[in-house]
Amino acid sequence: MQILLTNDDGIYAPGIAALKHTIQDLGQITVVAPDVEQSGVGHSITFSHPLRIREVHLHNEFIGYGVNGSPADCVKLAIYDVVKHKPDVVISGINLGSNVGIHILYSGTVAAAVEAAIMGYPSIAVSFEISEQYTDIQGAASVARRVIELIVTHRLPAGSLLNVNIPSLPPDQIKGIRITRQFAHDFKETFEKRIDPGGKAYYWLKGTNKSVHREEGTDINAINEGYISITPLRYDLTDNNLHKKIEGWDWKGIVS
Amino acid sequence: MQILLTNDDGIYAPGIAALKHTIQDLGQITVVAPDVEQSGVGHSITFSHPLRIREVHLHNEFIGYGVNGSPADCVKLAIYDVVKHKPDVVISGINLGSNVGIHILYSGTVAAAVEAAIMGYPSIAVSFEISEQYTDIQGAASVARRVIELIVTHRLPAGSLLNVNIPSLPPDQIKGIRITRQFAHDFKETFEKRIDPGGKAYYWLKGTNKSVHREEGTDINAINEGYISITPLRYDLTDNNLHKKIEGWDWKGIVS
Repeated sequence: MQILLTNDDGIYAPGIAALKHTIQDLGQITVVAPDVEQSGVGHSITFSHPLRIREVHLHNEFIGYGVNGSPADCVKLAIYDVVKHKPDVVISGINLGSNVGIHILYSGTVAAAVEAAIMGYPSIAVSFEISEQYTDIQGAASVARRVIELIVTHRLPAGSLLNVNIPSLPPDQIKGIRITRQFAHDFKETFEKRIDPGGKAYYWLKGTNKSVHREEGTDINAINEGYISITPLRYDLTDNNLHKKIEGWDWKGIVS
Repeated sequence: MQILLTNDDGIYAPGIAALKHTIQDLGQITVVAPDVEQSGVGHSITFSHPLRIREVHLHNEFIGYGVNGSPADCVKLAIYDVVKHKPDVVISGINLGSNVGIHILYSGTVAAAVEAAIMGYPSIAVSFEISEQYTDIQGAASVARRVIELIVTHRLPAGSLLNVNIPSLPPDQIKGIRITRQFAHDFKETFEKRIDPGGKAYYWLKGTNKSVHREEGTDINAINEGYISITPLRYDLTDNNLHKKIEGWDWKGIVS
């Protein structure tokens, strides 16, 4: 099995190293990941400057290819010019921090998997909810491995995309798996306004306490309750209900 | 009517100026837009550095607020700390260049409208397919105005989002309006590999000829055939069909 592995925390991040180490016997793994952290870049792509690919070594060992671009760039470029064989699956992660709810839209980790799906490859985004209480990325990688093994056994259809989130618990305390939907409401994030030494205002985006969101069946609720969340995603954003509704509006007068 | 106007081409771009000028009598317009061009940033958000807001003047006239962030940042920050009254509608554009098909996912213009929808405001993204033959942004703005007027007359529900694309034609040659769905296949973009003077490779992302995509009912087909395309979008990416399918997989063994 050919596996393309990427992430948005950058090629030196502990999450991608732990996952690569844990799944190395599942197939031939090629790592193509951003040179530096790209968290929060969403589905950005680079066309205003050229991309570079470099071979990355760590402790005298070749670990993969670094790209001066976004996670989506990495997937595009990997398939265009790095991998010798087309991947059977593209895996993005493990991200340090969950990617649930509206944050799916901001996530470079998910965007890489979406890009792979658009290009016709099955893909899996894997994120790990870190907390002060529990930060063991190796434990999360061992859980991720079992999830990935099951998914590839079932031959995920081309272009399908699963968003996997692992709760912040030791593997033996995780309660199970839930197939979920995206929590699609606003997290009501705000800013913290501060004044700099020169007297001018600046604004920091503030996270929210996600644990207050308890809507059943959603990704965020699953990890809050100690379950692994698996959400199938699509990249066609068409709102079919609204499509039917606005078709009846009187559009004739717009163009004479 | 309170209108929040933003874009991804930056606050000095001709598209946002033309739209503001053309719709100024529809309500109270507040412009909050990126300081510099942000095309292709997708739904990126900024949390690794603080944001600043500055008052922007052009030819001694106050034109709006510039933010050192993404289009989505502009919407979040505008509603948090700039606008005095909550907007009745958020408009993003006019973007120079269409945002159809998969490019919807890469588009900062659309991301700003998505962010507004997530926050519970009706929103409209407006893009104009420019071509060598026809580049009149004023003409596109006059068409956009009529579309926007009709949409606000119908009181778009809170959280609804319409993606409007105007074809590269003079207003009197546009054939009409089509309510469309997103063209959800890969555009098969590739890279152009070049060698720099030092002998090293670099890669430019290459656009594709979108005119080859003729799938009926899609956004790209509508503008290719000379129609205004209006696509209702949603930001819940859950794939409900795949959800049902994978629920039946044997997930029990993952967690013991």
